[in-house]
Amino acid sequence: MPKLLDAIDAGRDLGSLSGTEMNSLAAEIRELLVDTIHANGDAGHLASNLGTVELSLALHRVFSTPYDKIIWDVGHQAYVHKLLTGRRDRFQTIRQQEGLAPFPDRRESDHDAFGVGHAGTAISAATGYAVARDLRGESNDIIAVVGDGALTAGLSFEALNHLGSLGSDVIVVLNDNAMSISPNVGAINRNINRFRVNSAYRDFKNELRKVVTHLPTGNWWWDEWRRLKRVPREFIVQSGFWDQLGFDYYGPIDGHDIGQLESTLRSVRHFTGKPALVHAHTEKGHGIPEAAADPVKSHSGTYWLKPATDAAAKPARTYSQVFGDAASQVMKHDDRIVVITPAMIEGSGLTALQREFPDRVLDVAIAEQHAVTVGAGLAAAGMKPIVAIYSTFLQRGYDSVVHDVAVQGLPVVFAIDRAGHVGEDGRTHQGFADISFLRCLPDMVVAAPVDDAELADLLDTALAHDGPFAIRYPRGAATTELSARTGEPIEVGTGTTLRDGDDLALVGIGSVLPDCIEAADLLAVDGTDAAVINARFAKPLDETLILDTARRTSAIVTIEENVRAGGFGEAVLALLADHDLADTYLGAITMPDTIVEHASQSQQRANAGLDSAGIVRSVRDLLGTTTAETPAPPRLIGR
Amino acid sequence: MPKLLDAIDAGRDLGSLSGTEMNSLAAEIRELLVDTIHANGDAGHLASNLGTVELSLALHRVFSTPYDKIIWDVGHQAYVHKLLTGRRDRFQTIRQQEGLAPFPDRRESDHDAFGVGHAGTAISAATGYAVARDLRGESNDIIAVVGDGALTAGLSFEALNHLGSLGSDVIVVLNDNAMSISPNVGAINRNINRFRVNSAYRDFKNELRKVVTHLPTGNWWWDEWRRLKRVPREFIVQSGFWDQLGFDYYGPIDGHDIGQLESTLRSVRHFTGKPALVHAHTEKGHGIPEAAADPVKSHSGTYWLKPATDAAAKPARTYSQVFGDAASQVMKHDDRIVVITPAMIEGSGLTALQREFPDRVLDVAIAEQHAVTVGAGLAAAGMKPIVAIYSTFLQRGYDSVVHDVAVQGLPVVFAIDRAGHVGEDGRTHQGFADISFLRCLPDMVVAAPVDDAELADLLDTALAHDGPFAIRYPRGAATTELSARTGEPIEVGTGTTLRDGDDLALVGIGSVLPDCIEAADLLAVDGTDAAVINARFAKPLDETLILDTARRTSAIVTIEENVRAGGFGEAVLALLADHDLADTYLGAITMPDTIVEHASQSQQRANAGLDSAGIVRSVRDLLGTTTAETPAPPRLIGR
Repeated sequence: MPKLLDAIDAGRDLGSLSGTEMNSLAAEIRELLVDTIHANGDAGHLASNLGTVELSLALHRVFSTPYDKIIWDVGHQAYVHKLLTGRRDRFQTIRQQEGLAPFPDRRESDHDAFGVGHAGTAISAATGYAVARDLRGESNDIIAVVGDGALTAGLSFEALNHLGSLGSDVIVVLNDNAMSISPNVGAINRNINRFRVNSAYRDFKNELRKVVTHLPTGNWWWDEWRRLKRVPREFIVQSGFWDQLGFDYYGPIDGHDIGQLESTLRSVRHFTGKPALVHAHTEKGHGIPEAAADPVKSHSGTYWLKPATDAAAKPARTYSQVFGDAASQVMKHDDRIVVITPAMIEGSGLTALQREFPDRVLDVAIAEQHAVTVGAGLAAAGMKPIVAIYSTFLQRGYDSVVHDVAVQGLPVVFAIDRAGHVGEDGRTHQGFADISFLRCLPDMVVAAPVDDAELADLLDTALAHDGPFAIRYPRGAATTELSARTGEPIEVGTGTTLRDGDDLALVGIGSVLPDCIEAADLLAVDGTDAAVINARFAKPLDETLILDTARRTSAIVTIEENVRAGGFGEAVLALLADHDLADTYLGAITMPDTIVEHASQSQQRANAGLDSAGIVRSVRDLLGTTTAETPAPPRLIGR
Repeated sequence: MPKLLDAIDAGRDLGSLSGTEMNSLAAEIRELLVDTIHANGDAGHLASNLGTVELSLALHRVFSTPYDKIIWDVGHQAYVHKLLTGRRDRFQTIRQQEGLAPFPDRRESDHDAFGVGHAGTAISAATGYAVARDLRGESNDIIAVVGDGALTAGLSFEALNHLGSLGSDVIVVLNDNAMSISPNVGAINRNINRFRVNSAYRDFKNELRKVVTHLPTGNWWWDEWRRLKRVPREFIVQSGFWDQLGFDYYGPIDGHDIGQLESTLRSVRHFTGKPALVHAHTEKGHGIPEAAADPVKSHSGTYWLKPATDAAAKPARTYSQVFGDAASQVMKHDDRIVVITPAMIEGSGLTALQREFPDRVLDVAIAEQHAVTVGAGLAAAGMKPIVAIYSTFLQRGYDSVVHDVAVQGLPVVFAIDRAGHVGEDGRTHQGFADISFLRCLPDMVVAAPVDDAELADLLDTALAHDGPFAIRYPRGAATTELSARTGEPIEVGTGTTLRDGDDLALVGIGSVLPDCIEAADLLAVDGTDAAVINARFAKPLDETLILDTARRTSAIVTIEENVRAGGFGEAVLALLADHDLADTYLGAITMPDTIVEHASQSQQRANAGLDSAGIVRSVRDLLGTTTAETPAPPRLIGR
């Protein structure tokens, strides 16, 4: 029997399906989700997508994209939306290089109204769409689908506050699964379910009756009215919170009952002059018992199945784990240390740490600005805060870094995970510029470890330092055995020589150094004797080491997993120029000055020429030793 | 008769004053505020401080700083706090170079628990202080004083949400004057006053009675209890909003009634286990009829008095006004253009524009992230948004710039006012790094006009460009007559030569160019024939012009009002190095890699060596033509 999904090229194709068929379609989609994500090495967002199957179906039955705009917050729950909008044939390529994007993407489809990846942007983007529509006098519907986790983001609140004051027609669907990735924290999430049934139901019916009596009889309104009368009394409740923000509140409804979702959405879209909040309860992992049983583990994969590919094998100890273990060590001996995370307990390697120090590991929810400023407050009060955060999410807290930490010179440590290429999460998640946006801040120390031991040493260093201190490290398995744990703080602004060499120096920082060493070994075959310098600090630079190396080798190539503009390499070049050594600068190997697309982390590094082969190609090119057998580097900045 | 204020060195000295004396003290303080701010050329925050005289007095009667922590949000209302905490002798120096800081400053006094300048940080910092106190088992009080305007900031909400879930004792005083600088917008502010009197008052009395009966008799509790019974029934109300955020709500109370403020604060501090929100109504400009009559005009000065100094004379047409006028021109001819401001209608020169295009000038309240993301939404919907924002506040919206605008390549124009030195607002407000934190973003255009006409031309250029485009310009009077209005978009990535010269080229961008021309004239006296290049674009660079100039003059000095790290000059140096011309680079003149303190804008520029005299000194030093009569430059980066 032909699959139902095969006949769906757009939302309009759903219209002819019966309720039973819709449920069968939902089951088909769930099967496809599990199979595809499993086949892809369990590298996709499973639980969140299982939770939004019915919601996606209902939205596409009621609204017509791309005329109507469905704006997904975060966007990791938009797989079903992609399946329903002409992309099912390519679905198995999701998150792969040149395959479907992991999140909604405006270039991929007109049905993706707004590109996304971070939480909290949908209501704001929807407000922009609404202002545009209202100015043009158009009448399309605009729907923002927002998880309860994303509500804690300050940006969501800023947008709710503005949209509520505009009184513009936007439907915000609150996809309430009582989880973000970790279980939610924060007062507003605790209280979402404490809505009071009140007079709003009566008012609502009266208002509807008034409207209906002014309309010509026999039209669709009567159908709506009949449908509405069947809605249970509990359907219409009101929250002081939403009311005060200027929203009409509808719910809570069952987010897995397509019929209820559909009738609610059809009703809500006819009320104008005020934004609406539709509160749907969903279950992460719904419909697949193993996924629902452990939504944290099934967030990104089928933990209960045998790995489909080797790639799914557990990596060696990750930098996140190294950080968590190092934090545990220092926290045992200093009770002033507090670790803060914006809803990334698991991702940042803090699961065990939180069990060990429940009072000193603060999960502040998806609230990066607050994560940083609460750290500044702790530092002002004499504590030693560590803000554990992904590079890409630190962008959200940037003014808190500048205004609350750097300007006050407060000793806040930033443990910046996922710096550099991060792989399949794609364009919105790369940690491509933290060196640049931190190095421009006065008195900010910016460091990157060469391996696991140095990360632990740098954490000691940071905690002993009286000022802001950032340590960036990459996603994935930690490098080992390039340094030895000293147990002593490292002197700020000092690097080391990993490999001696007279002809050239590869001056690298952090994640790129293992490839620099491999490249030096490969270059030795050409007869090029390359030194490898572990700069350790992008700010302050180890001026003595770099200048001495430049004088000795007369040939400096800088390598970093950050864009060139404002990065480590430009700092080195400026230092060289200030000492009449600019002619020793050969070039820089960096992340590209373009948006980095989804692919595996190693593919991305190879694309940027940041793997050992790429470094060799670049150096040969810079030295003019490129031969016919060695193709030109894929991307090279330098003379 | 000796003044009452002369006897106040700390809050404890207030304790002996009678109610009448407190009111006399308040009047004394008001007089001093008006006199001091007027004498300083009306360059201070007047209306907000007049509005918090009684609140400051009551806080310092009830709480003991620095043991208790009073954390001021924004901090422009903390003048009275400074007067009461040992700084009255230096008060007339406020906002002057080496005088008292414009805002609370941890280095200035132990009574300033947290440094500030931007809105929305206080509740977050207070949460940090509270976590520290609770971990240490201490029992000091922590009070965050927050204006209603700052509540719209996402950071405030993130902090309320977290603090509410912690159940930690923090008193948030909502200083509700129904204004930020402009009248507030946003749903939450519209609804602050719609609190409902309900059963909370009864519950509150019952709870109190229960507590009191368990305490030994005859102690201070009985005084509290008697005082509390006098509190009117309306005193205790409850808001669904605050309740759902986990706060006990008290108010609204009269923020100019010292007795009521004091008794409320004394009562609230005894209830533990939950944060409290004390809602005080205040009036901006209170006690001085002219100030209260126009709080927008009296926000920063005594508009009704004759200027005390020439400095108060209206400057020539400012860049803000030039932007407003240019926006008006383009908006007349293209109804897709929408201007967005985060609560800076007056500051950004948009007052007339908003009157002209009320539907297309969006004030989104203090909500910089939303200001940028709503712009991204508008652009996605086919409109042409211009986000008008100060450089320092753009830091708040950084992830929205990266994730919503740059990553999607959306055509959002950023009109960045107050780039570079901003003068007396001091360390928190300098626009010191926008070139650095924008230049590292792929496909971001970063431009700065040489004068008023070029700002208008660049706005045309930006609106014609299909991608993100930032234009930065300084605070204050616009330069004129260095360019002519072409009425045509400028080609992206092209600069101009302002002055020919063979010996050396001063390659500058934006605000520094008038001083570069003056410097070139002064250098001519030495016999040095300096060219002056208006680079216009920090990204993309005019490579042809810069490389040709380097080849011709063999001596490049870059000049910019931005820090060196990641700035325009490093981009130029990298370009030169990529073309084997690094030896033509002499050095860079930039803002310092230190926090810039309050002083006049011209003092700050002189301190940085960015005025014509400083540029001359630097160039002479770089060329080795420094003579005994020409002192070394105050700060110079270069070889």
